[in-house]
Amino acid sequence: MSDKTYETILYDVEDGILTITLNRPEKMNAFTGQMMFDVIDAFDRADADDDVRAIIITGAEKAFCAGADLSAGAKTFDYEARDDRPDKQGTAVKDGGIDWSDPSVRDGGGRMTLRIFESIKPVIGAINGAAVGVGVTMQLPMDIRIASTKARFGFVFARRGIVPEACSSYFLPRIVGISKALEWCYSGRVFDAQEALDGGLVRSLHEPEDLLPAARAIAREIADNTAAVSISLTRQMMWRMLGADHPMEAHKVDSKAIFSRGRTDDAREGVMSFLEKRQPDYPCKPSKDMPEFYPWWEERKYS
Amino acid sequence: MSDKTYETILYDVEDGILTITLNRPEKMNAFTGQMMFDVIDAFDRADADDDVRAIIITGAEKAFCAGADLSAGAKTFDYEARDDRPDKQGTAVKDGGIDWSDPSVRDGGGRMTLRIFESIKPVIGAINGAAVGVGVTMQLPMDIRIASTKARFGFVFARRGIVPEACSSYFLPRIVGISKALEWCYSGRVFDAQEALDGGLVRSLHEPEDLLPAARAIAREIADNTAAVSISLTRQMMWRMLGADHPMEAHKVDSKAIFSRGRTDDAREGVMSFLEKRQPDYPCKPSKDMPEFYPWWEERKYS
Amino acid sequence: MSDKTYETILYDVEDGILTITLNRPEKMNAFTGQMMFDVIDAFDRADADDDVRAIIITGAEKAFCAGADLSAGAKTFDYEARDDRPDKQGTAVKDGGIDWSDPSVRDGGGRMTLRIFESIKPVIGAINGAAVGVGVTMQLPMDIRIASTKARFGFVFARRGIVPEACSSYFLPRIVGISKALEWCYSGRVFDAQEALDGGLVRSLHEPEDLLPAARAIAREIADNTAAVSISLTRQMMWRMLGADHPMEAHKVDSKAIFSRGRTDDAREGVMSFLEKRQPDYPCKPSKDMPEFYPWWEERKYS
Repeated sequence: MSDKTYETILYDVEDGILTITLNRPEKMNAFTGQMMFDVIDAFDRADADDDVRAIIITGAEKAFCAGADLSAGAKTFDYEARDDRPDKQGTAVKDGGIDWSDPSVRDGGGRMTLRIFESIKPVIGAINGAAVGVGVTMQLPMDIRIASTKARFGFVFARRGIVPEACSSYFLPRIVGISKALEWCYSGRVFDAQEALDGGLVRSLHEPEDLLPAARAIAREIADNTAAVSISLTRQMMWRMLGADHPMEAHKVDSKAIFSRGRTDDAREGVMSFLEKRQPDYPCKPSKDMPEFYPWWEERKYS
Repeated sequence: MSDKTYETILYDVEDGILTITLNRPEKMNAFTGQMMFDVIDAFDRADADDDVRAIIITGAEKAFCAGADLSAGAKTFDYEARDDRPDKQGTAVKDGGIDWSDPSVRDGGGRMTLRIFESIKPVIGAINGAAVGVGVTMQLPMDIRIASTKARFGFVFARRGIVPEACSSYFLPRIVGISKALEWCYSGRVFDAQEALDGGLVRSLHEPEDLLPAARAIAREIADNTAAVSISLTRQMMWRMLGADHPMEAHKVDSKAIFSRGRTDDAREGVMSFLEKRQPDYPCKPSKDMPEFYPWWEERKYS
Repeated sequence: MSDKTYETILYDVEDGILTITLNRPEKMNAFTGQMMFDVIDAFDRADADDDVRAIIITGAEKAFCAGADLSAGAKTFDYEARDDRPDKQGTAVKDGGIDWSDPSVRDGGGRMTLRIFESIKPVIGAINGAAVGVGVTMQLPMDIRIASTKARFGFVFARRGIVPEACSSYFLPRIVGISKALEWCYSGRVFDAQEALDGGLVRSLHEPEDLLPAARAIAREIADNTAAVSISLTRQMMWRMLGADHPMEAHKVDSKAIFSRGRTDDAREGVMSFLEKRQPDYPCKPSKDMPEFYPWWEERKYS
């Protein structure tokens, strides 16, 4: 399945599980504009491929992702002063004003996390080592994070003179609570895997050699037992209702989802395999069998 | 107080505490359309009855609720293929389109959880045994869940080819966090009481024989010490502000509530009984003394 | 720095850290209208003063704040019956109707917590003793709460015939979860520091003599290592996105914040001090260097 290759990541599908590996080990997998494009493309492929039932994201060798690549030095975060941004159109600052419609002035971490947010496949972060700056904020829209005992984390933005990005002000307080989110972002210090576990940032710790097997076991259980379309709908229902203002909004979607899914061969197979105590074999595929009411939202525009 | 009887539940009021018992023990208290109507009616009665200060919900005999009754087999979730739905009007699918104004095409679990959400009496779930599918999602709008050490839980929807319902995409991530919510819904497996406690789904575990006494002790403390109208307002303030987008929305309600409640005999009794170190006796009743600004919301319609 | 004095609080700035001490020890620092005005004024001063990098709030002597001052007895919460409210205009009830535009009928606790919510300096609660009623709800918009082992807490409102106020229906469920929030507000009982820790209300417990040093250590780490403007933006981003309905709302702010902050001398200093492994010295100040897109929200009005 890996006929297409990427500059900054590895893309491997095996037995229904896609593993995306951030792959700039000589730079501790530091984040670049190219990596943003590569990850976004990988999620597009995964969503379109029924052979992908779950996605694992990890880092090559010792680090997960050391944050923004600082090799541009003092001008790292000064987009106008740099000429190496892949989609720079040169129009960002024009006549003294900023052209916000130029995508190159948008936060790259956020463009990536918004794409992960929109995934219709489950996303498991397997945090193998240092995860700092965008290396940790990129994890927040992943569904489940497990970590190596050697992982380290740091919301270091205030120590670089910038701010938390990649939509982390939306995601982080919803995952670890507003107080822990602020404490980590205020101090900007790097902390260990145990503190990440205690604070609710990751679900479980594993010895380095057990990390990917643990991630695969989670993915395996999904792939072997559940209906793919059910999982895709579940992911979007849960993440999107996290922003809803009343349970009625969920009820409107639930009603359509139960009514339409209930009539499918998946539901028949789900009930019958349970009553007959056998392994299920669900026929529906996300590529062609998502219900007609999906998507039920209007896409949120950047403007 | 139990002059009215129900087909699928028991309704018992004793010393200010209503106990609703899901009562189809031969079917592990499996959920049916009739049970939905019975539970909704029970909450209507409880809200209108000043003798009910708190509500406990539990299951008869070994199970809490085994989920949807699967005795219709493969067509269990195919509403159109079934002729046993209590409020089916036969109009749900008409000229190829679905008539969403027909309540029989709405998710029954959600119609029930929305009613529990609107309760003005505190709701305590006493989870005595297996709670699977709608048997667990129905618990989410309850205020406090305590469980027997023999309870088991399962968000099994993706293993039946359907999706989490009963507004659980709204409630569950707000109770246990988005990651745990997704993990449980992705795997669809049944898990034990300890995992429910560790994940934040339930507040405490109890030996089977201690479960109802523990639920009653929580209810008792409310009934004996607090002003009933204060409790009813508190329940709606907390649950509804969970969907608010700014603390100012709470301040608007707080200001009216403090101003209007502060002038009542309840507030005078609350302060004086405290200063005089005696048991309070609050005169106001929810049936007639809710403040005039209540309800402060417009009802959210299904449409 | 303490040229201005207050009637009900102490205001002390030392080494970049402001300590606000609730200071009516003979009344267990009970809350009054004057205290509301004093705290609001203190936050105005702190936001305007670049020498204040973080704020600690604590109580004088044994208590933190025992709640509303009950010395008015039965008419404590009856605003119209009292003549000692500092901003009372006598117009609240007119021709039988309530004039909601009169600020004296607004909840005083909420006017104070909304001001704390708007702070651009980090706020650390050092809860040294009893914190009951508004004494605990005033803590909720603080970023981090640490407590003495001798602290006690009580959401006692339903035992006084009133309701939780100070926007606590917004803040409390977001901090401790809806179930714990309701449990504490339903029972109205006073509980100890360990229960506050277990329930997620406070971050850590300390021996009484270690409490202020622990608070100062948290403040110190912020003041010594981070860019002040970054911290001010971070505080408002996190708290305000807690009410957002989609991560795109964060992305819009992130993009402007990263773009504008990335061009500042703070960002250059942040990267260079990191690469050169030296202590940073950030030049930008909140009083004059907040980015032009700040504030990015329209003020939420009371009406």
